[in-house]
Amino acid sequence: MQQNIKIVLVNTSHPGNIGGAARAMKNMGLSELVLVDPKLFPHDEAVSRASGATDILDNAKVVATLEEAIADCQLAIGTSARERHIPWPLVDPRQAADLVFNEQLKTAFVFGREDRGLTNEELQRCHYHVHIPSVEGFSSLNLAAAVQVIAYELRMQELSLQDGPIVKSKWDVPAATSEQLDYMLGHLEKVLGDIEFLDPKAPRQVMTRFRRLFQRSQLDQQEVGMLRGMLTAIERQQPKGE
Amino acid sequence: MQQNIKIVLVNTSHPGNIGGAARAMKNMGLSELVLVDPKLFPHDEAVSRASGATDILDNAKVVATLEEAIADCQLAIGTSARERHIPWPLVDPRQAADLVFNEQLKTAFVFGREDRGLTNEELQRCHYHVHIPSVEGFSSLNLAAAVQVIAYELRMQELSLQDGPIVKSKWDVPAATSEQLDYMLGHLEKVLGDIEFLDPKAPRQVMTRFRRLFQRSQLDQQEVGMLRGMLTAIERQQPKGE
Repeated sequence: MQQNIKIVLVNTSHPGNIGGAARAMKNMGLSELVLVDPKLFPHDEAVSRASGATDILDNAKVVATLEEAIADCQLAIGTSARERHIPWPLVDPRQAADLVFNEQLKTAFVFGREDRGLTNEELQRCHYHVHIPSVEGFSSLNLAAAVQVIAYELRMQELSLQDGPIVKSKWDVPAATSEQLDYMLGHLEKVLGDIEFLDPKAPRQVMTRFRRLFQRSQLDQQEVGMLRGMLTAIERQQPKGE
Repeated sequence: MQQNIKIVLVNTSHPGNIGGAARAMKNMGLSELVLVDPKLFPHDEAVSRASGATDILDNAKVVATLEEAIADCQLAIGTSARERHIPWPLVDPRQAADLVFNEQLKTAFVFGREDRGLTNEELQRCHYHVHIPSVEGFSSLNLAAAVQVIAYELRMQELSLQDGPIVKSKWDVPAATSEQLDYMLGHLEKVLGDIEFLDPKAPRQVMTRFRRLFQRSQLDQQEVGMLRGMLTAIERQQPKGE
């Protein structure tokens, strides 16, 4: 799906931002970069900021006009920081990513100049405008940062359509069962009695708090074993008697 | 709420990244920046990349250790690009933002070195690890870009808890009513008959497609007026007769 999406940068002034955009794209699985009349490209600073995403820079297409850049696209979404004279269909980055995956169209995300964004004419060539919801009074994101946010949302959308959690934690030990937890809490209660920590007449409230704590922790089986080992060691320290 | 959140950068090498992080924070309404033993700070490059977010740089606290940086925090969330030896509670950026707003705790987001991230010891001081779901094989984001993604998710979470859409389009004209649309379509059908575009024996399918098109467009009242004006102009061009 990501191969259906191109990133278009219009009239970029700073080659470092082109490199930063390429890196952000590659991090998030995008590969098609089109540069409309960049001020300086190719450039060492682009390579340096790309930090290894040089394949994207090498394959970047340089064209003279936005029309050329989006000629083969079925959907164009332009980034916009401010309200325009004629209101246009406007989405946030999450809605934009949603659109792209719902519609399954060849899509261009179009980013404007560092200082002035896209012109009204350029924005009017886009089906939608996307606004990254920055705070009023300091609303202009760095260009590569804006590409990062859009690319991130596309990646999140892609992953959310797959099975399972987006970020997978591979826990190394199975979770403890209820029975294992009960044995451990029983063992704990006995030891807390041995060491005279529990009030034998009213042990319940403390034990309830311990249960809440260890249930909330979702103990794994190794942790339960570790705690029981500790309890056994405490028992061994106890003076014989009784 | 955002004032309950601090961004902690550990051992940053490039002052430009500190500036970029400050800009990303300010764009998204964050203000508290803590630098743990930065290589070069203050620095011109930080100011230049901050692009106006100098108040955040000026107020940044420089400390010697991570312990100091997070001493007053109730929740610490460390960014991590790879699986660690001992698995740790792991979330994606959206889940992390959710946690922060659910728990309403003083929270630190901790970001590591450009080249090596956080050490295992540093990560173990964090309650959660957050992983930005980059592609395998090119998983390391630029530091300021990573701050941008986290700050963006926090902003989205904050805005989603408010009423109304995250990004508000102020359309300038009310949407057309069903009756206005019907009049316009009736007018269109008449004119299409006049100009002999419609097959008078089977006008329905074309008119259904026009209805679908204009309903999908969610015409506003000015657009309906514009279309009716156009239809009237076509009528005026027609030879008198019949």
